[in-house]
Parts: sequence; C-alpha cells; structure tokens
Amino acid sequence: MPQRYAYLGPQGTFTEAAMRSFPGADEAEHLPYATVPAALDALRRAEVDLAVVALENSVEGSVPTTLDELATGEPLQIVGEAHLPVSFALLVRPGTDLGDIKTVASHPHAQPQCRRWLAENVPHAEWRAATSNAEAAQHVADGHYDAALAGSFAAARYGLSVLAEDIHDVADAVTRFIALRRPGTPPPPTGTDRTTVVAFIGEDHPGALLEILTEFSMRGINLTLIQSRPTGAGLGSYLFWIELEGHVDDARVGEALMGLRRVCADVRFVGSYPRADQVRPEIRRGTHDQDFTEAAAWLASVRSGHA
Amino acid sequence: MPQRYAYLGPQGTFTEAAMRSFPGADEAEHLPYATVPAALDALRRAEVDLAVVALENSVEGSVPTTLDELATGEPLQIVGEAHLPVSFALLVRPGTDLGDIKTVASHPHAQPQCRRWLAENVPHAEWRAATSNAEAAQHVADGHYDAALAGSFAAARYGLSVLAEDIHDVADAVTRFIALRRPGTPPPPTGTDRTTVVAFIGEDHPGALLEILTEFSMRGINLTLIQSRPTGAGLGSYLFWIELEGHVDDARVGEALMGLRRVCADVRFVGSYPRADQVRPEIRRGTHDQDFTEAAAWLASVRSGHA
Repeated sequence: MPQRYAYLGPQGTFTEAAMRSFPGADEAEHLPYATVPAALDALRRAEVDLAVVALENSVEGSVPTTLDELATGEPLQIVGEAHLPVSFALLVRPGTDLGDIKTVASHPHAQPQCRRWLAENVPHAEWRAATSNAEAAQHVADGHYDAALAGSFAAARYGLSVLAEDIHDVADAVTRFIALRRPGTPPPPTGTDRTTVVAFIGEDHPGALLEILTEFSMRGINLTLIQSRPTGAGLGSYLFWIELEGHVDDARVGEALMGLRRVCADVRFVGSYPRADQVRPEIRRGTHDQDFTEAAAWLASVRSGHA
Repeated sequence: MPQRYAYLGPQGTFTEAAMRSFPGADEAEHLPYATVPAALDALRRAEVDLAVVALENSVEGSVPTTLDELATGEPLQIVGEAHLPVSFALLVRPGTDLGDIKTVASHPHAQPQCRRWLAENVPHAEWRAATSNAEAAQHVADGHYDAALAGSFAAARYGLSVLAEDIHDVADAVTRFIALRRPGTPPPPTGTDRTTVVAFIGEDHPGALLEILTEFSMRGINLTLIQSRPTGAGLGSYLFWIELEGHVDDARVGEALMGLRRVCADVRFVGSYPRADQVRPEIRRGTHDQDFTEAAAWLASVRSGHA
C-alpha cells in the first residue's frame, strides 16, 4: 500500500513543493490539509504516514503554530527537513501586463518579503490577503484579482502565466520545512544531523537559561535555534525550543540531554534527523564518542580499584 | 600478622598522634620515617600497609612535598583523614621556669603559629630550628636547648615537663593528616565523603580552569580545596590538586570526573574517603543518583524509539 503524505494545502503551495523533496514522495499519495493542526492531527490519527509543515523562515522567524503543536500537543517526531529558497513569482492571467495590475494577492507571509519589489514594479497596485499563495493564484484564475505572489510551480496548475520570477527582498532567504512521523526510532546518524528538543522550565529561577546553555557548551555542542515560548499554563511557565548540531546517538548529545532532563521540569525529544544543509559539526577536543567511552572505562577501573 | 603503619617520625610527633587515630592503629606496628618521601616509598615497596602524613595546615596551607609525591610519584591512594588541632605545649626539663628560658626549639612550621605567644611570654628567648618537634624535645632532654614547642603527648616520652599548654596564635587552626594505601578499591561511601583528584593541564589555554570548575559546578559539586602546582616538566606545564565533596561512586561525581578526564591531558584519582569533619554535602535538585538513573532510562527509551 502506498504511503500517504500530508501537507499544508491547497495544491501549489511551497509546502507541497517541500513535501515532494522528501524520500518516498514520488510513490506516496499526497493529501492537502487546510491548516497545520489539521495536517498534524491527521498524522496523529494515523490517517497519513508523514506530514510536512513549515517550521521557520529566515526572514520572519519561526512559525508559532508549528512550534506550539509539537511542543505541547500529542507528540510527533521530526524525521527530516528541507530548505526552500524564499522566491516568488508574479502570476497573472495570460495576456496581463504590469501596467494592468491593480490588485496583488498572497498569503500574508509573502507580502513583507516582496514589499520593495512591489513598490518598485507595481507601485499603484493594492495588496489582498489570501489563506495561501495557491489560493491567491486560484483567485487570479477566477478573475477576482489581477496577480498573485506564489511559487512559479503554481502557474501551470492554475493556468496562469509567470510575469516575473525570483522576487524577494532579502537575498538567500529560505523557509525550513520539516517532515514528521509518529514517534519511533530516530533515523540513523549521518554525521550531519540536527536534534530538536523542548525543555520545560518548571519553577522559574535566575540562571535557568544559563544552566541549559552550559549543558551544551561544555560538551562542545553548537545550538542552531533557541526560542522561548509560553506553555499556555499561565504566566511564568515557559519552555525553550532548542535545536542543536548532532544526533541523539552521539555520546556528547546524549549526556547533554540527560543533563537537561535532570535540571528541567520536563524535556520532550522532538527528533534527530539529517540536516538539509549538510553542515558537519566541529567536534571539540574531548567530546568525540571514543573520548566518552575511554572516560567511562577509566571511571569503572577507578571505582573497582583496578586502575 | 599485624599491619604495619608508617608515619613521619620521630616518636612523639603530631603525625604519630594522627596515625594513632586511624582504625586498626592499636593493633598495628608503628614505624617512624625521617621524611614524607621515605614513609611513602616504604608503602610503595610494601614494607608497610599504611602511611600517615600531613597534607595541609589551616594556617600555613598545603604541604608541598606531600602534594607533589602523590600527584607525580608512583600512585598511592588516600583512604582516610584526621584533623588535629594545632596546639602546642612548651616542654622543659623538670624545674625550669619561664625566666630560665634562653632558647626555644621547634620544627619551622610551629614557630609562626606560636610567634605571638613567644613574644609575650618569653620575649628574650631565641628560636632554634629542629627537623621535628619531637627532635626539639629530644634536644631539650639532652640539655642543648631550654624549651621545645611540641605536642603535650611528647612530654612523657622525653621525660620533660609541660610548662604551658594550648599555645597557638590562631584559634581553631587544624592540621589535616591523610592515611594512604597502595591503590585499590576505595572505601565504601558513607554519605560524608571527600574525593581527591589531580588534573593535568597539557596545553595551557584561556579558560582551562573555568572548564574544570564548570564540570563540578554544573553538577552541584562543592570543591573543598584547589591548588595549582607546577608538574616539574617545564614552565607552563601544571596541575591542579582538587578536593571535592562526595564519593567517586556518586553518579554526579563519576560524571564530573569523566568530564575532567575528557578535557584534561590526564587525571589521577587519589582517593574517595570519609571526611574527618563528617560534613554532609547539600545535594542540588537534579543531581541525586536516582536523577541520573532516571535520565539514563529516558535517553535509552528515546534512542530506541520506545519513548
């Protein structure tokens, strides 16, 4: 039976494009969902085998809905990630010229990333919100709006023309998408992995964050993302979304996570998975797996008196 | 066959008094040695089963010879300690009065600890050095000097009288003695233990000491002594003599020592043994043995996918 992959729809979104980059996508059935929680709930209910959602955007930051769902909802596990350049196309009905454009529709996320381009090229056009860039394209096809900002891959699907491509205000901006499965054994280490955990601060106290950071820094573990969020359980109750270089099977990562587990009210493991950018961590003196193995053997010999 | 206990002699020294406080001393044969290295070498050569030497004095600090012997000589292991109050008696030949005293002999360590008392009570007496306080007493008995600063317990042995007791310039000053054996299984934890290690810094670098201190502080381990010493292998090569609260069998101590082992050029375990003052460490949230056990079980479940 083919696998079923969920994504934030409708068809033609960047999320669909990201989903198609994950292994097995070609053979899988693709199911669009209207919201991030709907896609994740479908995965939790086992209606699909994998779900793809956006986690962060290098211009606008993390996606709060995704973070909150994964931090405090029924657990799911990140098994992969994809980075897609933030680059839009201006889609119009065939025959439309720049001078004809009075309205431009897009998802609210797209507008700030194309603001300068719009001001320079269609200064008199008004912007209209859509629930997704794909829906904006649909509205253009239907004749409601004159142009849509969307991925160029959406043009064919909606019978539109690409009037301009590679539209973005910030060079090298990317959106990071994650592939999720129900909890299980993490994918094996590749040497270029990332690990995501959520650390819950029970009783807030001075130095709480430093305590957490020290668990990583003293084992030479580089963090790639840290973000505090309220847990929803009242003022003063908060969590840290933490991403780090390395795999939970690495000795240095394992010991740091055990340290976190000891000093935090709770820790949720969200996943260890290959990095899309394949950046290899610099492993500091004394933090290789064999250093931990050697130190454990030494301690055992000291304790038993066979040093 | 009775055990043989070595101590820094001659008979009548504070070290002998400390040695007599260790378990089994009553049944053991007592062998005085002229120097600390001689006593330790006798232990290394298995001529004795236990050796007692001074490690530090709360007025004058650590005893360099003892530190260096244990840090860089053939390994020995501390199995116990004793604290003796630093308090001297003025020993004279029977019939001598304070006014008759023109010379006072003692080990060089004793003189600074009694300087004020001497200035007030025998202001015109000259001080003479002896290789031990007991030897000073012998010189008084022989008629070479008029008085000796020594433990009051030395009086009977040398046929002298105690002219004054409880002589010390600093209240509550103590000398700390240690009992050593050849390396073996440490004495079992008592809940009020101390652990001694030597950390060798290979290539000196900024933050080397902070790295070491962090291994202990983040696991809530209190240090009771830290002292840097040259290793004798050239400028820039140095070691830290480190004493801490807890036993090598404690999970928090074990993990800290493994951390030290990973980040230092070398680590020598010198012993885990009951504290003479029976001070119980305050164990911080998240650093009890069961916290480490629980965290390890959690990590195992995460790695295997059975979380």
